[in-house]
Amino acid sequence: MANPIKGVPHLMTLADLNVHQIHKIVAHSRYLKRTSLPWLAPLSKQPKAPTSHGYGKSPSQSSSMVRTIPRTLDRKTIALLFSKRSTRTRVAAETAATLLGGQALFLGRDDIQLGVNESLRDSARVIAGMCQGIFARVGDHEEIEELAKYSAVPVLNALSSLWHPTQVLADLLTLQEKAYLFETPGSRQPGSYPRLRPLTIAYVGDSANVLHDMLVTYPRMGHQLRVASPDNEKYRAPKAVWDRVVELECDKGIFWTSDPREAVHGADVVVTDTWISMGQEAEKEQRLRDFQGYQVTEELCREGGANPEWKFMHCLPRKPHEVDDEVFYGPRSLVFQEADNRKWTIMALFDLLFGQWRFTPELPGEREQTGEN
Amino acid sequence: MANPIKGVPHLMTLADLNVHQIHKIVAHSRYLKRTSLPWLAPLSKQPKAPTSHGYGKSPSQSSSMVRTIPRTLDRKTIALLFSKRSTRTRVAAETAATLLGGQALFLGRDDIQLGVNESLRDSARVIAGMCQGIFARVGDHEEIEELAKYSAVPVLNALSSLWHPTQVLADLLTLQEKAYLFETPGSRQPGSYPRLRPLTIAYVGDSANVLHDMLVTYPRMGHQLRVASPDNEKYRAPKAVWDRVVELECDKGIFWTSDPREAVHGADVVVTDTWISMGQEAEKEQRLRDFQGYQVTEELCREGGANPEWKFMHCLPRKPHEVDDEVFYGPRSLVFQEADNRKWTIMALFDLLFGQWRFTPELPGEREQTGEN
Amino acid sequence: MANPIKGVPHLMTLADLNVHQIHKIVAHSRYLKRTSLPWLAPLSKQPKAPTSHGYGKSPSQSSSMVRTIPRTLDRKTIALLFSKRSTRTRVAAETAATLLGGQALFLGRDDIQLGVNESLRDSARVIAGMCQGIFARVGDHEEIEELAKYSAVPVLNALSSLWHPTQVLADLLTLQEKAYLFETPGSRQPGSYPRLRPLTIAYVGDSANVLHDMLVTYPRMGHQLRVASPDNEKYRAPKAVWDRVVELECDKGIFWTSDPREAVHGADVVVTDTWISMGQEAEKEQRLRDFQGYQVTEELCREGGANPEWKFMHCLPRKPHEVDDEVFYGPRSLVFQEADNRKWTIMALFDLLFGQWRFTPELPGEREQTGEN
Repeated sequence: MANPIKGVPHLMTLADLNVHQIHKIVAHSRYLKRTSLPWLAPLSKQPKAPTSHGYGKSPSQSSSMVRTIPRTLDRKTIALLFSKRSTRTRVAAETAATLLGGQALFLGRDDIQLGVNESLRDSARVIAGMCQGIFARVGDHEEIEELAKYSAVPVLNALSSLWHPTQVLADLLTLQEKAYLFETPGSRQPGSYPRLRPLTIAYVGDSANVLHDMLVTYPRMGHQLRVASPDNEKYRAPKAVWDRVVELECDKGIFWTSDPREAVHGADVVVTDTWISMGQEAEKEQRLRDFQGYQVTEELCREGGANPEWKFMHCLPRKPHEVDDEVFYGPRSLVFQEADNRKWTIMALFDLLFGQWRFTPELPGEREQTGEN
Repeated sequence: MANPIKGVPHLMTLADLNVHQIHKIVAHSRYLKRTSLPWLAPLSKQPKAPTSHGYGKSPSQSSSMVRTIPRTLDRKTIALLFSKRSTRTRVAAETAATLLGGQALFLGRDDIQLGVNESLRDSARVIAGMCQGIFARVGDHEEIEELAKYSAVPVLNALSSLWHPTQVLADLLTLQEKAYLFETPGSRQPGSYPRLRPLTIAYVGDSANVLHDMLVTYPRMGHQLRVASPDNEKYRAPKAVWDRVVELECDKGIFWTSDPREAVHGADVVVTDTWISMGQEAEKEQRLRDFQGYQVTEELCREGGANPEWKFMHCLPRKPHEVDDEVFYGPRSLVFQEADNRKWTIMALFDLLFGQWRFTPELPGEREQTGEN
Repeated sequence: MANPIKGVPHLMTLADLNVHQIHKIVAHSRYLKRTSLPWLAPLSKQPKAPTSHGYGKSPSQSSSMVRTIPRTLDRKTIALLFSKRSTRTRVAAETAATLLGGQALFLGRDDIQLGVNESLRDSARVIAGMCQGIFARVGDHEEIEELAKYSAVPVLNALSSLWHPTQVLADLLTLQEKAYLFETPGSRQPGSYPRLRPLTIAYVGDSANVLHDMLVTYPRMGHQLRVASPDNEKYRAPKAVWDRVVELECDKGIFWTSDPREAVHGADVVVTDTWISMGQEAEKEQRLRDFQGYQVTEELCREGGANPEWKFMHCLPRKPHEVDDEVFYGPRSLVFQEADNRKWTIMALFDLLFGQWRFTPELPGEREQTGEN
C-alpha cells in the first residue's frame, strides 16, 4: 500500500505478511498469553502468594515467572479510532495496551468525526504526532489507507469494510492451541507438542471481512477452504480481495459453492459470521431470505458429511439464526476461546508493531513453540 | 445467588456479607485512605519532598510511608458496565483502580448495549475472559444477577434497581470517622480511638436502593433505623428486599411511618435521597406532591425532636426540594465527606474482591483500627 | 480571580502569569519534550536497545537518558471536564498525563452535564475530592471561574469562551524552537542557542479565545501584534479581555485594523483561526460574508508587504476558506509542529500545576535553555 513516510510499518490485512511472519505473530501471542495469565490471576490464587499480601510488592517483584511481560508501550499511548462500535476489539485493545505498560485512548464516533470536521489527512498527522500507534476501525477501507498514508506511526487495521486481520490471527491461535483435537492418533512423538495438521475449514455465510482474511491466509498455511455463500455477486469476495487471493496463489486451495451442505463436506472446522453487518440493517429481510438454510446445525453438518469431530467458530456477536444453541453453547464450540484470544493476538501486534516496529520477534522462550514453521 | 462458576466471589448487596466482613471492609477502606492521601498530595506539600524535585524518583521511592499502597490490580483491567450515568461512582472507580495500579475501562450505554446486540450471557462470558473484574451499574437488578451467573471474574454491584452496597459502605466509613461527634462525654479511655456508639438513623424519602442496603445493614451493626415514606405501596421496600431484611432479623431494628416528623424523633443522623430516580421523570409531578413535607430542614428536625446535634447525609446529586441550603451547606452536613469516601470504599472492594478474591483482609496496619468488632 | 480555597493555584489565562513564569513554563515544556521523545521512540529505533529485547526491562531501566521524565502524577487522576469536543486538547492531555505516570479521566457532555443535574458548585467539590486536578473545556468563561471557586485542587483552562492559554503556550514554544528562522545573519555567538528576536505577528480573523491570550502575552514578551478583524463590535475583543490588556500595558504593542492587508504589513508570522466557532453555526452565512478577503494566501501577504520569509500558524482544525492549501501545506506552515507542541506545554502545566502546585520549576537541566529570561 501507499506509504510516503518511509520505514513506518502498517498492517491492513494478513495478505501484507508472509507465512513466516504470520507464524511468528501467532507464536508470540501464545508466549504473551502464557506469561501474562499468572500475573492476572487473583492474588489468593497465585502459585506463590507474596508474604506481605501485596503490600509494598507488586506480583512482578515477587515472582520471577511473571517478570517477563514486555513493557514496550511503557507510558505510550495507542489511539483507537473507532468510527463504529466494536466491543470485543476495543476491550481486547485496552487490556492489551495496559498489559504492555501503556494506554489505549478510545476515540469513538462522538469524540472524533473522521473526515467531517477536519480532513483525514490532517487528523492522521496530528494524532500520529502525539500517539505511538493508531488502531483504526473505520467504515470504508479507503479511509484506513488514507490514515496510513499520512501517519508517522504504525496504523493497524482493527476492522474495515474489506479486512479483519486481528480476528483471523485469533482464530489461528485458537486452532493451534486446539491442535490435539485434530490429531491423528499415534502421529505424535512422545513428549512433543501437538502440531496442527492441515485442516479442511468450511465457511458458511456472507463474504465479509473475516472471510476475506481467511481467503488470503489459510491456503498458504496448508489448510483447505470450502466456502458457501448465496448465488449473488454481492455475497462474493469483491475484486480488490480476490486480486490479493490470486496474487498469493491462495485460489488453488479454495472451493466455492452456494450449497452449505457441499461446503461442510469433510470439514474439520465450520465457521460463520453475521449475515447483517452494521449499516446493512435496511437489507435485513432480503438477507434473511437469501441465507435460508445457512444456519449451522448438527443436522446440516451430518447431512453435508462433515468430519464427525467438527468444531465450530464464530467471531461474535452471534445471532441465533446463524447457528443454533446446541452447536453454539455445545462442546463443538470454540467461540469463547476465540474471543479470549483476540486479546493475545492484539497484544502481540501492539508489542511488535507499535512497540518494536517489526513483525518478526526474536524473543526468549518463543522458539519452543514455533514447530510449524 | 446463583453462581455456577465455583469459587468466584460476587457482591450484590451488603446482605451478602456478615457483620465481621462489613467491619473489615470499612476498616480496610480507612487504611487505604490513610496510606493513599500523602501520596496524592502535591509534591510541594509532601512532608518530605524528594531532593531531586521528582525527577527520576517517584514519591513511592522517596518515602517509605507511602510505599504501602497495594498494587493488586497492577496491569489489570476492571470493566465498568454502566447502562446509566453515575458520575460519582464512575470517578470513584476510575481513581481507585489507578491507585491500585490498574485501569478501569468504562463502557457506557453508547459503547455497549447490554442485552441488545448480544445476550447478557455472551457479553458476560467475553468481558470476563479479558478483564479481571466487572463493576456494573445496570437497570433492573436481574441483569446484574445474570451477569454474575456467567462471569468467570467477580461482579460488584455499582447500583441496581434494588441495591446500592458501595454507597452504604461509604456512609459507614463516614460515620465511623465522625464517631467523636456522637460520643458521650467521658466515655472514652484516654489515648484510645473514639468508637461509634449505637445511633438512631432516620431516613426520610423514597424506598430506593440506598435505603434498601441500609435496611439489611444498620440494625445488624447495632443502629436503630426510623424510616418515613409516603403511604403508598410503591414507596415501600419491595418483597425481594424485605425478605432479606427478615432473614437477617433486621426488621426488629426498623420503625416505619409515613410522618417525617415521627421518623426524625431522637435521630442522630438524618438521611435522604432523590425522590425522582432516573427513569421516573414521567412521574415527577405526582412524586413532588406525594413528598410534600419531606424536605429536610432545621424546622422539621426541631419539631420532630431530633437529637439537637443531628447530622445530615445524602448520596448526591441533590435537588433543593429534598433538603434546603441551610442544612445541605451547613455544619450538620456530612455529604461531601460521604462523596469522598465513595472512593476509598470502592478502592477497598476493588482490592479485596477483584485483586484478592476475598472479603476479609488480613493486612498489616489494619488491626489498630478495628476496635468496633 | 475569586479563590476561596487558600493556596490552590489555578490558571485561567496567561494574563494570570508574569513574563518570568511564562518563560519558565515554555522552557520546561522544551525540557520535557527533549527528555520524553527518546522514551517514546520504537524499541528498534532507540539509541541503545536493551539486550533482552524489552523483556523484563522497561526503557527507563535500561537507559539513564530517559530516566529523567518526572512522575509527578504517579497514580493520580486529572479530570478532563469537556462540555464541548476538542480532539487536539484531549489527546494532548491524555498522552501528557500518561507520560507523567498518571491518568486523564475524560468526562464529556454525555458523561456529566455540568450544571444540569447538579450545581457546578457541588460537582466541583465532589470531583476535586477524588481527582488531583481539573482540566476544563467549558462554554461560558464564568463556568470555569465557578469551578475554580469551589475546587480544592488546581483548575486549568483547556478552552473557554474568552481564553485559550495552552494554545498560546504551544505557539510560543514553536516560535522559540524556530528562532533560527528569524535570526539576523551573524547575530549569534558561535556555539550558542538561537534566541527569538522581537517579531511582528499578524492575526487575521475573528477576535476569539486564541487571539485574546495573544493580546495579553505577546506584547509583554517583546513582540508587536497587528490584528485585522471585520468592522463590527462582535469581532472585537470583549471588555473583560481588553481590561486585562490595558492592565498589563499590552495595548501599546497592538495595532488593530479591519484591513487584512494592512495587518500583515511587515509580519514575520501570520496567524488565523476558525471564523465559525462551535455554537456559531447559525451565523455561518453572515460570517462567511463578513470575512470575505480574510483568507491567508501568498497573494494577500505579498500585497500587504509581509516579511518575505513570513511563517504561518493555525491552531486547527482548519477550513480551506481561512487559508489556502498552498500556504497550509507549504514550507511556511508551522501548524503541525504547533499541534505537536500542545502536548508538551500541557504536560509542563500538568507537571507544574497539578503535580507540584507551582508555576516556576527549579529543575535540573533546565537552566541551560532559559537564555531569554
